[in-house]
Amino acid sequence: MAKDVDMKKLILDLDTGVDDALAISYVLGSPEIELIGITGTYGNVLLDQGVRNSLAITDLLGHPEIKVYKGLPHAGATDSFTVGKASAFIHGNNGIGEVDIPDSKREPESEPAVDFIIDAANTYGKDLIYVPTGPMTNIAAALRKAPEIANQLGGIVFMGGALTVQGNVNAWTEANISQDPEAADYLFRSGASTTMIGLDVTLQTLLTYEETQRWRDLGTAAGTFLADMTDYYIKAYETTAPHLGGCGLHDPLAAAVAVDPTLVTTLPINMQVDVEGPTRGRTIGDNERLNDPVKTTKVAVGVDVKRFLNEFMTRITALAQAAN
Amino acid sequence: MAKDVDMKKLILDLDTGVDDALAISYVLGSPEIELIGITGTYGNVLLDQGVRNSLAITDLLGHPEIKVYKGLPHAGATDSFTVGKASAFIHGNNGIGEVDIPDSKREPESEPAVDFIIDAANTYGKDLIYVPTGPMTNIAAALRKAPEIANQLGGIVFMGGALTVQGNVNAWTEANISQDPEAADYLFRSGASTTMIGLDVTLQTLLTYEETQRWRDLGTAAGTFLADMTDYYIKAYETTAPHLGGCGLHDPLAAAVAVDPTLVTTLPINMQVDVEGPTRGRTIGDNERLNDPVKTTKVAVGVDVKRFLNEFMTRITALAQAAN
Repeated sequence: MAKDVDMKKLILDLDTGVDDALAISYVLGSPEIELIGITGTYGNVLLDQGVRNSLAITDLLGHPEIKVYKGLPHAGATDSFTVGKASAFIHGNNGIGEVDIPDSKREPESEPAVDFIIDAANTYGKDLIYVPTGPMTNIAAALRKAPEIANQLGGIVFMGGALTVQGNVNAWTEANISQDPEAADYLFRSGASTTMIGLDVTLQTLLTYEETQRWRDLGTAAGTFLADMTDYYIKAYETTAPHLGGCGLHDPLAAAVAVDPTLVTTLPINMQVDVEGPTRGRTIGDNERLNDPVKTTKVAVGVDVKRFLNEFMTRITALAQAAN
Repeated sequence: MAKDVDMKKLILDLDTGVDDALAISYVLGSPEIELIGITGTYGNVLLDQGVRNSLAITDLLGHPEIKVYKGLPHAGATDSFTVGKASAFIHGNNGIGEVDIPDSKREPESEPAVDFIIDAANTYGKDLIYVPTGPMTNIAAALRKAPEIANQLGGIVFMGGALTVQGNVNAWTEANISQDPEAADYLFRSGASTTMIGLDVTLQTLLTYEETQRWRDLGTAAGTFLADMTDYYIKAYETTAPHLGGCGLHDPLAAAVAVDPTLVTTLPINMQVDVEGPTRGRTIGDNERLNDPVKTTKVAVGVDVKRFLNEFMTRITALAQAAN
């Protein structure tokens, strides 16, 4: 990551669990983009735990300048949010694989995440990419409050959904979408340009103990943290998805596509979320907008696995080596 | 259609309703391929009605040499088949838009469809394309009886399913698949090379009264039949899918792709059918075979609408003019 007036800007919207932490690492390891802030959401962990993790992780990775903003604590259609058992199993109760890292001395910003998103869209316009890797609650709220940002933003690259493969909550629902189907549906219908990085591609990009050992071998605090945290996640995958032979790099793939869209091949399509009926939470093409020549979503249906994994290891390893 | 030892051979497997009749017309109007037989299935109509229609239509279109074989009358998991109300509404009770055409004097062949398929696969091997446009009952039965034909056949191009869009029976199920989910799942797992022409593309290829008028203007019996039959179908679509502004050319698109695969863009993926649970009948990627480098199915996700419609009108109009 670097700072430059002409440089593409990025906001990460995170429910900071293991792969969210890897997404932070990927972006901080990317010299061609500037991370202008992290907005916090709920999902893998509660909002406050995620915000705490984002502050602690940016410190540990040598980037205490990254501001963190608190988002909404639950979906608009519900009164509260409870972390699912599967999330706690995969990410650990603290979200980062039960690894202890020091709390940051910093606090989150006083400006709410939704206002920060709107301000940033006004300031940076097409140079800004927004990358949600949890539920779409914050961006949907920003779009409701300031609908004009749909056309101002450079784009939204989100991790979530499953178009051509089965879900991971049940056979038709992916976790991020399941936590706020209405918000995701609102986003799809908002006119904003979205790129969906769903299970279609993220279950093809797998990490194993072989790669995490390279981080451990660095001998840095950042390298050890990343290795220990990710090993917890890989181990959970051995139980939840033994056929894969590794862990899915969900959130970092979305971050990587925000940096370099050519990593995936996409299908242009107007999408919706089923918000009613037995398939609530399913991401699917909207038949009523099938023949609309304007397609607002690109769904990733193919990924250059080898090139992504190479970028992933190169960028994160360099960052973990430099951090301390 | 023509006859030549080196020419690609095609079998149509039809539940002969309106768009099945258009698929017959497309293939008979295609000089680069030889239609070696029609196998009958159930769906839009009962088996016997579909066989009757196939015999009568091939006569009317000037091709009484086309042999018709009787397939299985219902799915293996059920004892019988009843035509759905929606099918009767869309295709008419006789399957061909309530248009009266003379019965053929011919009878279906005595050889059962399943045996004919196996024999043809043995005889023609890679030169043979099998095109089911109803449920997959006959081809699944053939694959169970003679599993070796999975690798002998040149390929199976079928109309059915919906991967990136909603279904037409309910939000997740397409009609052909819904009539025998087990058979379609068996086909997907058989190792046979399949191309899925689903609602993803067939709802993009629409015909209107403007085109059918060109057939009527020919002044031939074939042209009048095709126009009257298809107008009934277009009129039904005005009720069932008014947003489309025409009727979907489901079965003829599958036939056209069998003749010229370049009409569609496809996603290589290993597919399955949900046979249990609330989404029974859904066509979706098989997550367990997601990272298998061998993909046995190509799902059409894009179609060259303009080129297809041009081929469709050119071929069928020429046939309807020449027929009588």
